[in-house]
Amino acid sequence: MKPASETAGFHCEALAIVGVGLIGGAIALKAKQNKLARRVIGLGRDASRLTSARRAGVIDEAATDPDVLRAVDLAVVCTPVDRIVDDVRTLIGVPDGPRLITDVGSTKGAICESLQNVSRFIGSHPIAGSEKRGFEHAHEVQFDGRMCAVTPTELNSAEAIARIEAFWRSLGMNVTRLSPQQHDAILARTSHFPHLAAYALAGLLQPGDEAYVAGGFRDTTRIAASDADLWTAILMANRDAVRETLRRYQQALTSLSRDLDDADECGLRSTLESARKNRLRLNEFS
Amino acid sequence: MKPASETAGFHCEALAIVGVGLIGGAIALKAKQNKLARRVIGLGRDASRLTSARRAGVIDEAATDPDVLRAVDLAVVCTPVDRIVDDVRTLIGVPDGPRLITDVGSTKGAICESLQNVSRFIGSHPIAGSEKRGFEHAHEVQFDGRMCAVTPTELNSAEAIARIEAFWRSLGMNVTRLSPQQHDAILARTSHFPHLAAYALAGLLQPGDEAYVAGGFRDTTRIAASDADLWTAILMANRDAVRETLRRYQQALTSLSRDLDDADECGLRSTLESARKNRLRLNEFS
Repeated sequence: MKPASETAGFHCEALAIVGVGLIGGAIALKAKQNKLARRVIGLGRDASRLTSARRAGVIDEAATDPDVLRAVDLAVVCTPVDRIVDDVRTLIGVPDGPRLITDVGSTKGAICESLQNVSRFIGSHPIAGSEKRGFEHAHEVQFDGRMCAVTPTELNSAEAIARIEAFWRSLGMNVTRLSPQQHDAILARTSHFPHLAAYALAGLLQPGDEAYVAGGFRDTTRIAASDADLWTAILMANRDAVRETLRRYQQALTSLSRDLDDADECGLRSTLESARKNRLRLNEFS
Repeated sequence: MKPASETAGFHCEALAIVGVGLIGGAIALKAKQNKLARRVIGLGRDASRLTSARRAGVIDEAATDPDVLRAVDLAVVCTPVDRIVDDVRTLIGVPDGPRLITDVGSTKGAICESLQNVSRFIGSHPIAGSEKRGFEHAHEVQFDGRMCAVTPTELNSAEAIARIEAFWRSLGMNVTRLSPQQHDAILARTSHFPHLAAYALAGLLQPGDEAYVAGGFRDTTRIAASDADLWTAILMANRDAVRETLRRYQQALTSLSRDLDDADECGLRSTLESARKNRLRLNEFS
């Protein structure tokens, strides 16, 4: 039988958020709202930003020294994907440091491989966010009914996995367990490559085109306003799966290009119609 | 000096909307709201749909016989791009038919070339719309502050051009004059090719991926829910410019692919950052 704390939801004394930006701030806010922790401690590098986050009520305590995280129950590392491994290692070095550690990185393969010997680390990816940055927009992030992928390894205990899953469920999310590789292959298709495609599309615009842009182009390229550093790191961290998706996309474009060259209306229509059905199927999941 | 009717806005006795779908319905509604005509006549092929549009208050009169359009001041042809030329020719065949004719086709080159001998036809493209269909969604279409391209030829009189431009301005739109070729080159970048790219992206989704889709993918592929017949016709009608944009897009992807192959973080970041600036510039035009 599972202990009550797992089935009835997550609760702890002290929750640490490492990196109080958009998603870290959103997790802190929601954890406070759902009363998941008695104290939410924000750890970061910029003391004045952390003070602002504390004053805004996003976190209860602000700290720049990891040693403050002694005896913390859970630390959620919300830094950019290329800093997560180092930040988790820093937490591990804290004497009597966080009992459980998870992250929110948009890629899992490289991170989970680097940390595969750390039994108290379990990778997570709450699929929620925005093209914006900073805890000031944290209230815009929606968790309710969204998916959170949890990517445990063989070293993680069933109890630790259950506790991490209970944490995300208590934020309102649906949880699914994937291998880091499964996660990265899916996310390459549903998020990472689409960002690359949107950036490439926004790059096509010529000066003066702006006035002729309607809602379609705006929506299609909205995510091209996302932070370039963050997305360079994500695309690099999931390079193999993104390249595989890119290859398939280029094949699809080549085939569409041939339809246009040959003025093959039937071929073009049938490709568009089948893509349209794929897109409409998403409406069942909204 | 321009006559008052041109500077003070558009007004007429009878306005005909040929094809009362999403955009035709929206023009009818807005023309009635802004009191641009005493009567708005909807012409179409499906009598029962037209009757519904009349009952919904979108049009004042419904007709399936073009002969009804005798002595009409302006006819706006809102049928799919591959039917516009035929529909305009039908109107020209009506004795004492519409004095002025325009259209709303998303492509202009092929249409304006076919109709270059028709002095009372002036091509237009109000850049407004939605991925939805049918006059039932007409109220969702926004004209205020949006751009309408007008693509006259040498045969059109200055007075006729001014009257068409006054019509679109009276709907709340900003009007710009372009050659049909300029129009098609710009729209290939800002609308036509982005639709193709969005369809191709939606086509990459594999069964089971749906649960891992977040706002980014949804937005990026929203226009892939657009009607496949309509978009096949548009892409075919603007084949050359779309192929040119597709070529440039493939070059951009190939360059990004090389950055990923070489793990060239700097190259990737600089491409993303420059695309991001392009996208952010759009916010000044919203």
